[in-house]
Amino acid sequence: MRNLTIEDVEYLAMGAAVLGTGGGGDPYLGKLMAKRAIMEKGEVSLIDVEEISDDCLVIPTALMGAPAAMLEKLPNGGEPEAAFRAVESFLGKDAFATMSLEAGGLNSTIPVYAAARLGIPLVDADGMGRAFPEIPMVSFSLAGVPASPMVCCDEKGNEVVFRAIDNAWVETLSRAVTVAMGLVSMIGLYVMDGRTIKQSSIRGTISLCIEIGRRIVESKAENVNPVDAILELTKGFRLFEGKLTDVRRDLTTGFVRGKASFEGIETHKGHSLTLDFQNENLIANIDGKPCAMVPDLITVLDRESGNPITTETLRYGQRVVIIGMPCDPIWRTERGLKQVGPRYFKYDIPYTPIEELVKERVP
Amino acid sequence: MRNLTIEDVEYLAMGAAVLGTGGGGDPYLGKLMAKRAIMEKGEVSLIDVEEISDDCLVIPTALMGAPAAMLEKLPNGGEPEAAFRAVESFLGKDAFATMSLEAGGLNSTIPVYAAARLGIPLVDADGMGRAFPEIPMVSFSLAGVPASPMVCCDEKGNEVVFRAIDNAWVETLSRAVTVAMGLVSMIGLYVMDGRTIKQSSIRGTISLCIEIGRRIVESKAENVNPVDAILELTKGFRLFEGKLTDVRRDLTTGFVRGKASFEGIETHKGHSLTLDFQNENLIANIDGKPCAMVPDLITVLDRESGNPITTETLRYGQRVVIIGMPCDPIWRTERGLKQVGPRYFKYDIPYTPIEELVKERVP
Repeated sequence: MRNLTIEDVEYLAMGAAVLGTGGGGDPYLGKLMAKRAIMEKGEVSLIDVEEISDDCLVIPTALMGAPAAMLEKLPNGGEPEAAFRAVESFLGKDAFATMSLEAGGLNSTIPVYAAARLGIPLVDADGMGRAFPEIPMVSFSLAGVPASPMVCCDEKGNEVVFRAIDNAWVETLSRAVTVAMGLVSMIGLYVMDGRTIKQSSIRGTISLCIEIGRRIVESKAENVNPVDAILELTKGFRLFEGKLTDVRRDLTTGFVRGKASFEGIETHKGHSLTLDFQNENLIANIDGKPCAMVPDLITVLDRESGNPITTETLRYGQRVVIIGMPCDPIWRTERGLKQVGPRYFKYDIPYTPIEELVKERVP
Repeated sequence: MRNLTIEDVEYLAMGAAVLGTGGGGDPYLGKLMAKRAIMEKGEVSLIDVEEISDDCLVIPTALMGAPAAMLEKLPNGGEPEAAFRAVESFLGKDAFATMSLEAGGLNSTIPVYAAARLGIPLVDADGMGRAFPEIPMVSFSLAGVPASPMVCCDEKGNEVVFRAIDNAWVETLSRAVTVAMGLVSMIGLYVMDGRTIKQSSIRGTISLCIEIGRRIVESKAENVNPVDAILELTKGFRLFEGKLTDVRRDLTTGFVRGKASFEGIETHKGHSLTLDFQNENLIANIDGKPCAMVPDLITVLDRESGNPITTETLRYGQRVVIIGMPCDPIWRTERGLKQVGPRYFKYDIPYTPIEELVKERVP
């Protein structure tokens, strides 16, 4: 166990946005919320999964939908607690801690905010080791944990509880409600006991995010380019240096779906990269051929600062480094790929690990 | 108190479809379900609102969405009980009876089905005295009763509980879920105690439906046209005799929205009537001018049999009598018209009672 400080939150938001692979929300608002909650309520205990008693319950908390919508209809601040409490109340049981479902600027900091406000610990783990766009795309789901009962809350005070026959139906029903709530909701779901978390979570994600964030910040202080430090911590690869020439987005389905195009600069002059995303970056093609694909991680970094750029903040003219990182091994299993592989996202290509692709495809 | 027999269900379904004013679902499936439940579980007690103790709880049950979708994905039979029980379980309290929200072929018989299966009484009242397309359009809502907690269930076993800040949000969120469930769901909502029902319900709707249905069936046996009997019981008016020449429907919003056109026959030869609907018939224009409008009732009857024809079963070539009936006085109040008047449905015309319109507009 250790305490999460306000400085840690700064690092966490930054590092989580790297693993957020374009999704998981812009870090700014979540960071502000988590810092303020810690100032008001005190530091949050970050506990290892081994510190959770087998019978204690944990309720993960998260934001669902298009984080950009949150900037237009600001949270009232009570939603993550409301979602957590509504799950407890539906179960008729108290929970011991909260945790993240995914790594992402918002979805790693919202649980810190919830933990601070609720006065409970945060578990140092998540269900993805990255960010993914849909509810069933967590290691818990592969281990057979039901997402139900799930709760969606909005900033007006509306609450919806889902008890669905499987996690795909939880996704369908809660996505419809999230769109109706204005494209974004705060959720509590995947209630688990300590025993289940030990078996099914991806461990240490919060610490890893903090470490990545710290290295980015320290590199800036030392006037060193932070990309190498990120690649070292994540075992990642430099895919492309380029300038953003076009980006298209559609929000209407409750996701941020789109495509961005980059024109090579420096060593990649004369080449081009296109990036498809659905909240998260899904596939990167260099000169029309894939150089990295889901479930491996693809992240766009600002070329100077190393700051991660989410799919919602991609803008014409940005000069970037695009990096790729291998995913957690659970996603490379047959069941993992069925849930989150390129074919799930309608790309009719077999999954090839990034370690192999970069050798052939990166100029 | 009296017992509802299988014969009563036959009458109820028929009469409710007359007051259903085109909506509330085709009577066929609900009638079969209610009859079968009575055969298996015994007759249902129909109780007057005065027979409910002030502190006893009642949970109305209904079908939401496009009833036609129910014919493509048949109910498993357990949904109305599941919705009722889920509301009870959410409240942590047992309820004493169920009732109808509206008069309609399905929404008057589904509560009979639920009552028979649950072994509880049915209240002889509803919240509309007709059918309306949206959740807040009940007398309970005008009296300040919250629709929350509301439950939507589907035939697969999915359950969603809504606790919204007002009844308009219950409508928005549950409509999204109903569409996601496949355009139809079974619901439990507007939990009330006996005291509240006595103050806010429209009394005797079930008995009135049974009486209308009985007269239609008896008229057929006596080879008499039943339209006069219906008009007598409902204080209604004969608006038009015609042949259906065109009908358009759109189901995608979770409602049956559309328009039907009729060409006059017999005394109305040379005239035309158009009928706009959103689940229910909303406005009838003869030769381009309104002759009846929501919240007054407009019902299409088969010209020979007197059987009511719902908006989902309108077909080219049908020869019909279109009748209009005055609504319950509560809908003609300022608050009533704000909730269900023509302007609510985007017709920029003032409400004029049918008694006045027929004098001027019916040829």
